[in-house]
Amino acid sequence: MDKDIKAKQVAERLLSQDPMSQWLGISILDVKEGYCKLQMTLRTEMMNGFNITHGGVLFSFADSALAFSCNNRNNFSVAQDTSINFLKQSKAGDVIIAESREVHNGRSTGLYLITLSNLQGDQIALFKGTCFRTGKPLFEDMQ
Amino acid sequence: MDKDIKAKQVAERLLSQDPMSQWLGISILDVKEGYCKLQMTLRTEMMNGFNITHGGVLFSFADSALAFSCNNRNNFSVAQDTSINFLKQSKAGDVIIAESREVHNGRSTGLYLITLSNLQGDQIALFKGTCFRTGKPLFEDMQ
Amino acid sequence: MDKDIKAKQVAERLLSQDPMSQWLGISILDVKEGYCKLQMTLRTEMMNGFNITHGGVLFSFADSALAFSCNNRNNFSVAQDTSINFLKQSKAGDVIIAESREVHNGRSTGLYLITLSNLQGDQIALFKGTCFRTGKPLFEDMQ
Amino acid sequence: MDKDIKAKQVAERLLSQDPMSQWLGISILDVKEGYCKLQMTLRTEMMNGFNITHGGVLFSFADSALAFSCNNRNNFSVAQDTSINFLKQSKAGDVIIAESREVHNGRSTGLYLITLSNLQGDQIALFKGTCFRTGKPLFEDMQ
Repeated sequence: MDKDIKAKQVAERLLSQDPMSQWLGISILDVKEGYCKLQMTLRTEMMNGFNITHGGVLFSFADSALAFSCNNRNNFSVAQDTSINFLKQSKAGDVIIAESREVHNGRSTGLYLITLSNLQGDQIALFKGTCFRTGKPLFEDMQ
Repeated sequence: MDKDIKAKQVAERLLSQDPMSQWLGISILDVKEGYCKLQMTLRTEMMNGFNITHGGVLFSFADSALAFSCNNRNNFSVAQDTSINFLKQSKAGDVIIAESREVHNGRSTGLYLITLSNLQGDQIALFKGTCFRTGKPLFEDMQ
Repeated sequence: MDKDIKAKQVAERLLSQDPMSQWLGISILDVKEGYCKLQMTLRTEMMNGFNITHGGVLFSFADSALAFSCNNRNNFSVAQDTSINFLKQSKAGDVIIAESREVHNGRSTGLYLITLSNLQGDQIALFKGTCFRTGKPLFEDMQ
Repeated sequence: MDKDIKAKQVAERLLSQDPMSQWLGISILDVKEGYCKLQMTLRTEMMNGFNITHGGVLFSFADSALAFSCNNRNNFSVAQDTSINFLKQSKAGDVIIAESREVHNGRSTGLYLITLSNLQGDQIALFKGTCFRTGKPLFEDMQ
Protein backbone atom coordinates (compact mmCIF):
# COMPACT_ATOMS: atom_id res chain seq x y z
CA MET A 1 0.00 0.00 0.00
CA ASP A 2 1.19 3.54 -0.71
CA LYS A 3 2.61 4.94 2.54
CA ASP A 4 0.57 8.15 2.37
CA ILE A 5 -2.67 6.22 1.81
CA LYS A 6 -1.84 4.03 4.81
CA ALA A 7 -1.02 7.17 6.84
CA LYS A 8 -4.44 8.60 5.97
CA GLN A 9 -6.21 5.39 6.97
CA VAL A 10 -4.44 5.29 10.32
CA ALA A 11 -5.31 8.94 11.05
CA GLU A 12 -8.97 8.50 10.08
CA ARG A 13 -9.32 5.40 12.19
CA LEU A 14 -7.69 7.13 15.16
CA LEU A 15 -10.11 10.05 14.85
CA SER A 16 -13.09 7.68 14.57
CA GLN A 17 -12.34 6.25 18.03
CA ASP A 18 -11.22 9.48 19.75
CA PRO A 19 -14.07 11.05 21.77
CA MET A 20 -12.19 14.23 22.70
CA SER A 21 -11.17 15.00 19.10
CA GLN A 22 -14.79 14.42 18.13
CA TRP A 23 -15.95 16.83 20.85
CA LEU A 24 -13.53 19.38 19.42
CA GLY A 25 -15.16 18.85 16.00
CA ILE A 26 -11.90 18.08 14.22
CA SER A 27 -12.00 17.27 10.53
CA ILE A 28 -9.02 15.95 8.57
CA LEU A 29 -7.95 18.05 5.58
CA ASP A 30 -4.80 16.19 4.59
CA VAL A 31 -2.53 13.40 5.82
CA LYS A 32 0.88 12.24 4.63
CA GLU A 33 3.47 10.11 6.37
CA GLY A 34 4.56 12.12 9.44
CA TYR A 35 2.27 15.00 8.46
CA CYS A 36 -1.32 16.13 8.86
CA LYS A 37 -3.51 19.18 8.37
CA LEU A 38 -6.69 19.51 10.43
CA GLN A 39 -9.54 21.99 10.82
CA MET A 40 -11.96 22.88 13.60
CA THR A 41 -14.40 25.67 14.48
CA LEU A 42 -14.23 27.33 17.89
CA ARG A 43 -17.48 27.24 19.91
CA THR A 44 -18.73 29.35 22.84
CA GLU A 45 -18.27 26.46 25.29
CA MET A 46 -14.55 26.47 24.41
CA MET A 47 -13.97 29.99 25.71
CA ASN A 48 -12.33 30.86 29.05
CA GLY A 49 -13.17 33.42 31.74
CA PHE A 50 -11.79 36.25 29.58
CA ASN A 51 -14.13 35.35 26.71
CA ILE A 52 -11.24 34.24 24.50
CA THR A 53 -10.36 30.68 23.54
CA HIS A 54 -9.24 28.55 26.49
CA GLY A 55 -5.58 27.68 25.95
CA GLY A 56 -6.41 24.05 26.59
CA VAL A 57 -8.66 23.89 23.53
CA LEU A 58 -5.84 25.10 21.29
CA PHE A 59 -3.44 22.69 22.96
CA SER A 60 -5.95 19.84 22.52
CA PHE A 61 -6.31 20.58 18.83
CA ALA A 62 -2.52 20.63 18.37
CA ASP A 63 -2.12 17.49 20.48
CA SER A 64 -4.57 15.63 18.23
CA ALA A 65 -2.55 16.85 15.23
CA LEU A 66 0.55 15.44 16.94
CA ALA A 67 -1.18 12.08 17.46
CA PHE A 68 -2.48 11.88 13.88
CA SER A 69 0.95 12.71 12.40
CA CYS A 70 3.35 10.89 14.74
CA ASN A 71 1.30 7.66 14.78
CA ASN A 72 0.45 7.43 11.12
CA ARG A 73 3.24 4.99 10.23
CA ASN A 74 1.26 2.65 12.54
CA ASN A 75 4.12 2.75 15.10
CA PHE A 76 2.30 3.35 18.37
CA SER A 77 3.70 6.61 19.80
CA VAL A 78 2.71 8.69 22.83
CA ALA A 79 3.25 12.37 23.56
CA GLN A 80 5.93 12.89 26.16
CA ASP A 81 7.23 16.45 26.30
CA THR A 82 5.19 19.19 24.67
CA SER A 83 5.03 22.98 24.72
CA ILE A 84 2.82 25.66 23.22
CA ASN A 85 3.30 29.40 22.72
CA PHE A 86 0.20 31.53 22.42
CA LEU A 87 0.72 34.26 19.83
CA LYS A 88 -2.64 35.78 18.93
CA GLN A 89 -6.11 35.64 20.43
CA SER A 90 -9.00 33.77 18.84
CA LYS A 91 -12.70 33.61 19.68
CA ALA A 92 -15.90 31.64 19.21
CA GLY A 93 -16.80 31.28 15.54
CA ASP A 94 -13.21 31.32 14.28
CA VAL A 95 -12.18 28.46 12.02
CA ILE A 96 -8.65 27.30 12.79
CA ILE A 97 -6.18 25.11 10.96
CA ALA A 98 -3.50 22.91 12.51
CA GLU A 99 -0.56 21.82 10.39
CA SER A 100 1.87 19.27 11.82
CA ARG A 101 5.36 18.85 10.32
CA GLU A 102 7.89 16.21 11.31
CA VAL A 103 11.24 17.68 12.37
CA HIS A 104 12.82 14.39 13.37
CA ASN A 105 11.79 10.75 12.96
CA GLY A 106 14.03 8.71 15.28
CA ARG A 107 13.80 5.09 16.23
CA SER A 108 12.61 5.71 19.78
CA THR A 109 11.40 9.32 19.59
CA GLY A 110 10.03 11.84 17.11
CA LEU A 111 9.84 15.64 17.10
CA TYR A 112 7.03 17.67 15.55
CA LEU A 113 6.25 21.37 15.08
CA ILE A 114 2.59 22.27 14.74
CA THR A 115 1.30 25.67 13.74
CA LEU A 116 -2.25 26.84 14.48
CA SER A 117 -3.56 29.61 12.28
CA ASN A 118 -6.85 31.28 11.45
CA LEU A 119 -8.35 31.61 7.96
CA GLN A 120 -6.75 35.04 7.58
CA GLY A 121 -3.38 33.28 7.85
CA ASP A 122 -2.46 34.74 11.25
CA GLN A 123 -0.49 32.33 13.40
CA ILE A 124 -2.39 31.77 16.68
CA ALA A 125 -0.04 29.35 18.40
CA LEU A 126 3.11 27.27 17.92
CA PHE A 127 3.21 23.76 19.42
CA LYS A 128 6.30 21.59 19.76
CA GLY A 129 5.96 17.93 20.69
CA THR A 130 8.29 15.03 21.38
CA CYS A 131 6.72 11.59 21.18
CA PHE A 132 8.06 8.29 22.44
CA ARG A 133 7.79 5.40 19.98
CA THR A 134 6.82 2.05 21.47
CA GLY A 135 7.76 0.08 18.35
CA LYS A 136 4.42 -1.75 18.56
CA PRO A 137 1.75 -1.48 15.86
CA LEU A 138 -1.12 0.88 16.67
CA PHE A 139 -3.60 -1.21 14.65
CA GLU A 140 -2.51 -4.84 14.48
CA ASP A 141 -4.58 -5.58 11.40
CA MET A 142 -2.83 -2.83 9.41
CA GLN A 143 0.79 -3.99 9.67
CA MET B 1 -9.41 42.75 52.58
CA ASP B 2 -7.12 39.82 53.38
CA LYS B 3 -5.09 39.04 50.26
CA ASP B 4 -5.91 35.32 50.31
CA ILE B 5 -9.65 36.01 50.65
CA LYS B 6 -9.41 38.37 47.68
CA ALA B 7 -7.43 35.73 45.75
CA LYS B 8 -10.19 33.20 46.40
CA GLN B 9 -12.89 35.62 45.26
CA VAL B 10 -11.03 36.36 42.02
CA ALA B 11 -10.55 32.63 41.29
CA GLU B 12 -14.19 31.78 42.01
CA ARG B 13 -15.45 34.61 39.83
CA LEU B 14 -13.12 33.56 37.01
CA LEU B 15 -14.43 29.99 37.18
CA SER B 16 -18.05 31.18 37.25
CA GLN B 17 -17.61 32.83 33.83
CA ASP B 18 -15.33 30.21 32.22
CA PRO B 19 -17.33 27.77 30.03
CA MET B 20 -14.41 25.45 29.26
CA SER B 21 -13.43 25.03 32.93
CA GLN B 22 -17.09 24.29 33.66
CA TRP B 23 -17.16 21.68 30.89
CA LEU B 24 -14.10 20.10 32.51
CA GLY B 25 -16.04 20.00 35.79
CA ILE B 26 -13.38 21.81 37.78
CA SER B 27 -14.00 22.51 41.48
CA ILE B 28 -11.79 24.74 43.60
CA LEU B 29 -10.26 23.10 46.67
CA ASP B 30 -8.02 25.93 47.86
CA VAL B 31 -6.77 29.35 46.75
CA LYS B 32 -4.06 31.60 48.13
CA GLU B 33 -2.24 34.50 46.55
CA GLY B 34 -0.32 33.04 43.60
CA TYR B 35 -1.55 29.53 44.45
CA CYS B 36 -4.50 27.24 43.83
CA LYS B 37 -5.52 23.62 44.19
CA LEU B 38 -8.25 22.24 41.94
CA GLN B 39 -10.03 18.92 41.39
CA MET B 40 -11.82 17.30 38.46
CA THR B 41 -13.08 13.85 37.46
CA LEU B 42 -12.13 12.39 34.07
CA ARG B 43 -15.06 11.38 31.84
CA THR B 44 -15.32 9.01 28.85
CA GLU B 45 -15.71 11.91 26.42
CA MET B 46 -12.27 13.18 27.55
CA MET B 47 -10.44 10.09 26.32
CA ASN B 48 -8.39 9.87 23.12
CA GLY B 49 -8.11 7.21 20.39
CA PHE B 50 -5.99 5.00 22.66
CA ASN B 51 -8.68 5.00 25.37
CA ILE B 52 -6.50 7.01 27.76
CA THR B 53 -6.98 10.65 28.74
CA HIS B 54 -6.46 13.07 25.85
CA GLY B 55 -3.35 15.15 26.62
CA GLY B 56 -5.37 18.27 25.88
CA VAL B 57 -7.72 17.59 28.79
CA LEU B 58 -4.81 17.40 31.23
CA PHE B 59 -3.28 20.53 29.70
CA SER B 60 -6.65 22.33 29.93
CA PHE B 61 -6.98 21.46 33.60
CA ALA B 62 -3.44 22.72 34.32
CA ASP B 63 -3.99 25.82 32.19
CA SER B 64 -7.09 26.70 34.25
CA ALA B 65 -4.98 26.22 37.40
CA LEU B 66 -2.45 28.63 35.89
CA ALA B 67 -5.18 31.20 35.21
CA PHE B 68 -6.70 30.88 38.69
CA SER B 69 -3.30 31.27 40.40
CA CYS B 70 -1.53 33.83 38.21
CA ASN B 71 -4.55 36.16 37.99
CA ASN B 72 -5.67 36.04 41.58
CA ARG B 73 -3.96 39.29 42.63
CA ASN B 74 -6.47 40.82 40.16
CA ASN B 75 -3.58 41.76 37.81
CA PHE B 76 -4.87 40.60 34.41
CA SER B 77 -2.34 38.04 33.12
CA VAL B 78 -2.34 35.79 30.06
CA ALA B 79 -0.51 32.52 29.40
CA GLN B 80 2.34 32.98 26.99
CA ASP B 81 4.78 30.09 27.00
CA THR B 82 3.71 26.79 28.51
CA SER B 83 4.86 23.19 28.50
CA ILE B 84 3.62 19.89 29.87
CA ASN B 85 5.32 16.55 30.45
CA PHE B 86 3.13 13.47 30.57
CA LEU B 87 4.38 11.05 33.22
CA LYS B 88 1.69 8.46 33.91
CA GLN B 89 -1.49 7.41 32.16
CA SER B 90 -4.94 8.16 33.54
CA LYS B 91 -8.40 7.05 32.46
CA ALA B 92 -12.12 7.78 32.69
CA GLY B 93 -13.33 7.77 36.27
CA ASP B 94 -10.05 8.95 37.78
CA VAL B 95 -10.21 11.97 40.08
CA ILE B 96 -7.25 14.27 39.54
CA ILE B 97 -5.82 17.15 41.52
CA ALA B 98 -3.96 20.17 40.12
CA GLU B 99 -1.73 22.18 42.42
CA SER B 100 -0.21 25.43 41.13
CA ARG B 101 2.81 27.00 42.85
CA GLU B 102 4.35 30.36 41.99
CA VAL B 103 8.05 30.13 41.16
CA HIS B 104 8.47 33.80 40.23
CA ASN B 105 6.22 36.85 40.52
CA GLY B 106 7.76 39.56 38.36
CA ARG B 107 6.37 42.91 37.33
CA SER B 108 5.71 41.94 33.72
CA THR B 109 5.80 38.14 33.89
CA GLY B 110 5.21 35.27 36.29
CA LEU B 111 6.34 31.63 36.33
CA TYR B 112 4.29 28.73 37.73
CA LEU B 113 4.82 25.00 38.19
CA ILE B 114 1.68 22.89 38.29
CA THR B 115 1.57 19.23 39.24
CA LEU B 116 -1.29 16.93 38.28
CA SER B 117 -1.72 13.85 40.42
CA ASN B 118 -4.28 11.15 41.06
CA LEU B 119 -5.82 10.26 44.43
CA GLN B 120 -3.15 7.59 44.95
CA GLY B 121 -0.57 10.39 44.91
CA ASP B 122 1.00 9.40 41.58
CA GLN B 123 2.15 12.37 39.53
CA ILE B 124 0.41 12.28 36.14
CA ALA B 125 1.89 15.39 34.55
CA LEU B 126 4.09 18.42 35.21
CA PHE B 127 3.08 21.76 33.68
CA LYS B 128 5.25 24.88 33.51
CA GLY B 129 3.73 28.20 32.52
CA THR B 130 4.96 31.74 31.97
CA CYS B 131 2.30 34.42 32.01
CA PHE B 132 2.51 37.99 30.80
CA ARG B 133 1.09 40.58 33.21
CA THR B 134 -0.86 43.41 31.60
CA GLY B 135 -0.86 45.55 34.75
CA LYS B 136 -4.61 46.12 34.30
CA PRO B 137 -7.21 44.91 36.83
CA LEU B 138 -9.03 41.73 35.87
CA PHE B 139 -12.20 42.81 37.68
CA GLU B 140 -12.42 46.61 37.86
CA ASP B 141 -14.83 46.54 40.81
CA MET B 142 -12.36 44.52 42.92
CA GLN B 143 -9.35 46.85 42.89
CA MET C 1 19.55 53.48 6.72
CA ASP C 2 18.42 50.21 5.17
CA LYS C 3 16.90 48.08 7.95
CA ASP C 4 18.97 44.99 7.10
CA ILE C 5 22.22 46.99 7.08
CA LYS C 6 21.31 48.38 10.50
CA ALA C 7 20.44 44.86 11.70
CA LYS C 8 23.87 43.65 10.59
CA GLN C 9 25.61 46.54 12.36
CA VAL C 10 23.75 45.82 15.62
CA ALA C 11 24.62 42.10 15.46
CA GLU C 12 28.30 42.74 14.71
CA ARG C 13 28.58 45.26 17.52
CA LEU C 14 26.88 42.86 19.94
CA LEU C 15 29.33 40.10 19.00
CA SER C 16 32.32 42.46 19.35
CA GLN C 17 31.48 43.03 23.04
CA ASP C 18 30.30 39.48 23.92
CA PRO C 19 33.12 37.45 25.58
CA MET C 20 31.21 34.15 25.67
CA SER C 21 30.30 34.28 21.97
CA GLN C 22 33.95 35.04 21.23
CA TRP C 23 35.04 32.06 23.33
CA LEU C 24 32.65 29.93 21.28
CA GLY C 25 34.36 31.26 18.14
CA ILE C 26 31.15 32.43 16.52
CA SER C 27 31.34 34.12 13.12
CA ILE C 28 28.39 35.87 11.46
CA LEU C 29 27.41 34.54 8.03
CA ASP C 30 24.28 36.61 7.44
CA VAL C 31 21.97 39.04 9.24
CA LYS C 32 18.59 40.46 8.29
CA GLU C 33 15.96 42.13 10.41
CA GLY C 34 14.79 39.44 12.88
CA TYR C 35 17.12 36.88 11.31
CA CYS C 36 20.70 35.68 11.51
CA LYS C 37 22.91 32.82 10.37
CA LEU C 38 26.04 32.00 12.36
CA GLN C 39 28.87 29.47 12.22
CA MET C 40 31.24 27.95 14.76
CA THR C 41 33.66 25.02 15.00
CA LEU C 42 33.42 22.59 17.93
CA ARG C 43 36.62 22.18 19.97
CA THR C 44 37.81 19.42 22.34
CA GLU C 45 37.28 21.64 25.40
CA MET C 46 33.57 21.87 24.45
CA MET C 47 32.97 18.14 24.86
CA ASN C 48 31.26 16.49 27.86
CA GLY C 49 32.02 13.36 29.88
CA PHE C 50 30.70 11.13 27.07
CA ASN C 51 33.13 12.69 24.55
CA ILE C 52 30.28 14.29 22.60
CA THR C 53 29.42 17.99 22.50
CA HIS C 54 28.21 19.35 25.85
CA GLY C 55 24.56 20.36 25.44
CA GLY C 56 25.39 23.73 26.96
CA VAL C 57 27.68 24.59 24.07
CA LEU C 58 24.92 23.95 21.54
CA PHE C 59 22.47 25.92 23.68
CA SER C 60 24.99 28.79 24.01
CA PHE C 61 25.45 28.93 20.25
CA ALA C 62 21.66 29.02 19.69
CA ASP C 63 21.20 31.56 22.48
CA SER C 64 23.70 33.89 20.81
CA ALA C 65 21.77 33.45 17.55
CA LEU C 66 18.63 34.41 19.47
CA ALA C 67 20.33 37.55 20.82
CA PHE C 68 21.71 38.59 17.42
CA SER C 69 18.33 38.14 15.72
CA CYS C 70 15.86 39.36 18.36
CA ASN C 71 17.90 42.48 19.21
CA ASN C 72 18.85 43.58 15.75
CA ARG C 73 16.08 46.17 15.39
CA ASN C 74 18.01 47.89 18.25
CA ASN C 75 15.07 47.19 20.63
CA PHE C 76 16.82 45.82 23.72
CA SER C 77 15.39 42.30 24.29
CA VAL C 78 16.29 39.58 26.75
CA ALA C 79 15.75 35.82 26.57
CA GLN C 80 13.00 34.69 28.91
CA ASP C 81 11.72 31.20 28.15
CA THR C 82 13.80 28.92 25.97
CA SER C 83 13.97 25.24 25.11
CA ILE C 84 16.22 23.00 23.07
CA ASN C 85 15.78 19.48 21.67
CA PHE C 86 18.87 17.46 20.95
CA LEU C 87 18.43 15.43 17.77
CA LYS C 88 21.82 14.16 16.61
CA GLN C 89 25.25 13.95 18.21
CA SER C 90 28.18 16.13 17.18
CA LYS C 91 31.85 16.06 18.11
CA ALA C 92 35.06 18.09 18.21
CA GLY C 93 36.06 19.30 14.76
CA ASP C 94 32.51 19.58 13.44
CA VAL C 95 31.51 22.90 11.89
CA ILE C 96 27.95 23.84 12.84
CA ILE C 97 25.54 26.43 11.51
CA ALA C 98 22.79 28.21 13.48
CA GLU C 99 19.91 29.79 11.61
CA SER C 100 17.42 31.92 13.54
CA ARG C 101 13.98 32.70 12.11
CA GLU C 102 11.41 35.02 13.63
CA VAL C 103 8.03 33.35 14.24
CA HIS C 104 6.43 36.34 15.96
CA ASN C 105 7.47 39.95 16.46
CA GLY C 106 5.18 41.40 19.12
CA ARG C 107 5.38 44.71 20.94
CA SER C 108 6.46 43.21 24.27
CA THR C 109 7.68 39.75 23.24
CA GLY C 110 9.13 37.90 20.27
CA LEU C 111 9.33 34.21 19.35
CA TYR C 112 12.19 32.59 17.42
CA LEU C 113 12.97 29.12 16.10
CA ILE C 114 16.65 28.31 15.65
CA THR C 115 17.98 25.24 13.89
CA LEU C 116 21.50 23.92 14.43
CA SER C 117 22.89 21.75 11.66
CA ASN C 118 26.20 20.32 10.53
CA LEU C 119 27.79 20.82 7.10
CA GLN C 120 26.21 17.57 5.86
CA GLY C 121 22.82 19.22 6.46
CA ASP C 122 21.83 17.01 9.39
CA GLN C 123 19.79 18.85 12.01
CA ILE C 124 21.60 18.60 15.38
CA ALA C 125 19.21 20.56 17.57
CA LEU C 126 16.06 22.69 17.52
CA PHE C 127 15.92 25.74 19.81
CA LYS C 128 12.81 27.80 20.59
CA GLY C 129 13.13 31.11 22.39
CA THR C 130 10.77 33.78 23.68
CA CYS C 131 12.33 37.16 24.36
CA PHE C 132 10.95 40.06 26.33
CA ARG C 133 11.29 43.47 24.63
CA THR C 134 12.20 46.35 26.93
CA GLY C 135 11.34 49.02 24.35
CA LYS C 136 14.69 50.73 25.06
CA PRO C 137 17.41 51.10 22.43
CA LEU C 138 20.27 48.61 22.74
CA PHE C 139 22.79 51.12 21.34
CA GLU C 140 21.70 54.69 22.02
CA ASP C 141 23.86 56.15 19.25
CA MET C 142 22.16 53.93 16.62
CA GLN C 143 18.54 55.02 17.05
CA MET D 1 27.78 -0.66 47.79
CA ASP D 2 25.47 2.01 49.20
CA LYS D 3 23.49 3.50 46.32
CA ASP D 4 24.31 7.10 47.28
CA ILE D 5 28.04 6.34 47.52
CA LYS D 6 27.89 4.75 44.08
CA ALA D 7 25.95 7.78 42.79
CA LYS D 8 28.68 10.08 44.08
CA GLN D 9 31.41 7.99 42.46
CA VAL D 10 29.64 8.05 39.09
CA ALA D 11 29.17 11.84 39.25
CA GLU D 12 32.79 12.50 40.25
CA ARG D 13 34.10 10.25 37.51
CA LEU D 14 31.84 11.95 34.94
CA LEU D 15 33.13 15.38 36.00
CA SER D 16 36.76 14.19 35.88
CA GLN D 17 36.40 13.41 32.16
CA ASP D 18 34.16 16.35 31.16
CA PRO D 19 36.21 19.22 29.67
CA MET D 20 33.30 21.68 29.41
CA SER D 21 32.22 21.21 33.05
CA GLN D 22 35.85 21.73 34.02
CA TRP D 23 36.00 24.94 31.96
CA LEU D 24 32.90 26.09 33.83
CA GLY D 25 34.76 25.41 37.10
CA ILE D 26 32.04 23.17 38.52
CA SER D 27 32.57 21.62 41.95
CA ILE D 28 30.31 18.94 43.42
CA LEU D 29 28.71 19.81 46.78
CA ASP D 30 26.44 16.78 47.17
CA VAL D 31 25.23 13.74 45.26
CA LYS D 32 22.49 11.24 46.00
CA GLU D 33 20.73 8.78 43.73
CA GLY D 34 18.88 10.93 41.16
CA TYR D 35 20.07 14.11 42.85
CA CYS D 36 23.03 16.48 42.86
CA LYS D 37 24.04 19.92 44.12
CA LEU D 38 26.82 21.79 42.34
CA GLN D 39 28.60 25.13 42.63
CA MET D 40 30.46 27.41 40.23
CA THR D 41 31.75 30.99 40.12
CA LEU D 42 30.88 33.21 37.16
CA ARG D 43 33.87 34.72 35.31
CA THR D 44 34.20 37.74 32.99
CA GLU D 45 34.66 35.51 29.94
CA MET D 46 31.19 34.02 30.64
CA MET D 47 29.38 37.32 30.14
CA ASN D 48 27.41 38.30 27.03
CA GLY D 49 27.20 41.54 25.02
CA PHE D 50 25.01 43.15 27.71
CA ASN D 51 27.66 42.50 30.40
CA ILE D 52 25.40 39.98 32.19
CA THR D 53 25.86 36.21 32.27
CA HIS D 54 25.42 34.55 28.87
CA GLY D 55 22.30 32.36 29.05
CA GLY D 56 24.32 29.50 27.63
CA VAL D 57 26.60 29.44 30.67
CA LEU D 58 23.63 29.06 33.00
CA PHE D 59 22.14 26.38 30.74
CA SER D 60 25.51 24.57 30.61
CA PHE D 61 25.74 24.54 34.40
CA ALA D 62 22.20 23.17 34.69
CA ASP D 63 22.81 20.64 31.91
CA SER D 64 25.84 19.29 33.78
CA ALA D 65 23.66 19.02 36.89
CA LEU D 66 21.18 17.04 34.78
CA ALA D 67 23.93 14.70 33.58
CA PHE D 68 25.36 14.16 37.07
CA SER D 69 21.92 13.40 38.55
CA CYS D 70 20.21 11.43 35.76
CA ASN D 71 23.24 9.22 35.07
CA ASN D 72 24.28 8.47 38.61
CA ARG D 73 22.56 5.08 38.81
CA ASN D 74 25.13 4.18 36.11
CA ASN D 75 22.30 3.84 33.54
CA PHE D 76 23.68 5.77 30.54
CA SER D 77 21.16 8.58 29.85
CA VAL D 78 21.23 11.49 27.41
CA ALA D 79 19.43 14.83 27.51
CA GLN D 80 16.62 14.96 25.00
CA ASP D 81 14.18 17.79 25.62
CA THR D 82 15.20 20.62 27.91
CA SER D 83 14.04 24.14 28.74
CA ILE D 84 15.25 27.00 30.88
CA ASN D 85 13.53 30.11 32.21
CA PHE D 86 15.69 33.06 33.12
CA LEU D 87 14.37 34.77 36.25
CA LYS D 88 17.04 37.13 37.60
CA GLN D 89 20.28 38.54 36.24
CA SER D 90 23.69 37.47 37.48
CA LYS D 91 27.18 38.81 36.78
CA ALA D 92 30.89 38.01 36.93
CA GLY D 93 32.02 37.18 40.45
CA ASP D 94 28.70 35.68 41.54
CA VAL D 95 28.80 32.20 43.05
CA ILE D 96 25.85 30.10 41.88
CA ILE D 97 24.38 26.83 43.08
CA ALA D 98 22.56 24.24 40.96
CA GLU D 99 20.28 21.75 42.65
CA SER D 100 18.80 18.91 40.58
CA ARG D 101 15.75 16.98 41.80
CA GLU D 102 14.23 13.93 40.14
CA VAL D 103 10.55 14.34 39.27
CA HIS D 104 10.17 11.02 37.49
CA ASN D 105 12.41 7.98 37.10
CA GLY D 106 10.95 5.88 34.30
CA ARG D 107 12.38 2.86 32.55
CA SER D 108 13.11 4.67 29.30
CA THR D 109 13.01 8.31 30.36
CA GLY D 110 13.52 10.52 33.40
CA LEU D 111 12.39 14.05 34.27
CA TYR D 112 14.39 16.53 36.38
CA LEU D 113 13.85 20.05 37.71
CA ILE D 114 16.98 22.06 38.39
CA THR D 115 17.06 25.39 40.19
CA LEU D 116 19.93 27.83 39.87
CA SER D 117 20.31 30.32 42.70
CA ASN D 118 22.86 32.78 44.03
CA LEU D 119 24.28 32.82 47.57
CA GLN D 120 21.61 35.31 48.66
CA GLY D 121 19.03 32.60 47.85
CA ASP D 122 17.54 34.38 44.82
CA GLN D 123 16.43 31.99 42.11
CA ILE D 124 18.27 32.88 38.87
CA ALA D 125 16.85 30.24 36.55
CA LEU D 126 14.64 27.15 36.41
CA PHE D 127 15.69 24.26 34.14
CA LYS D 128 13.53 21.28 33.18
CA GLY D 129 15.07 18.29 31.46
CA THR D 130 13.88 15.00 30.04
CA CYS D 131 16.54 12.37 29.51
CA PHE D 132 16.38 9.19 27.49
CA ARG D 133 17.74 6.09 29.23
CA THR D 134 19.75 3.72 27.04
CA GLY D 135 19.69 0.90 29.60
CA LYS D 136 23.45 0.45 29.12
CA PRO D 137 25.96 1.00 31.93
CA LEU D 138 27.82 4.32 31.79
CA PHE D 139 30.94 2.81 33.37
CA GLU D 140 31.18 -0.90 32.64
CA ASP D 141 33.52 -1.56 35.58
CA MET D 142 30.99 -0.10 38.05
CA GLN D 143 28.01 -2.36 37.36
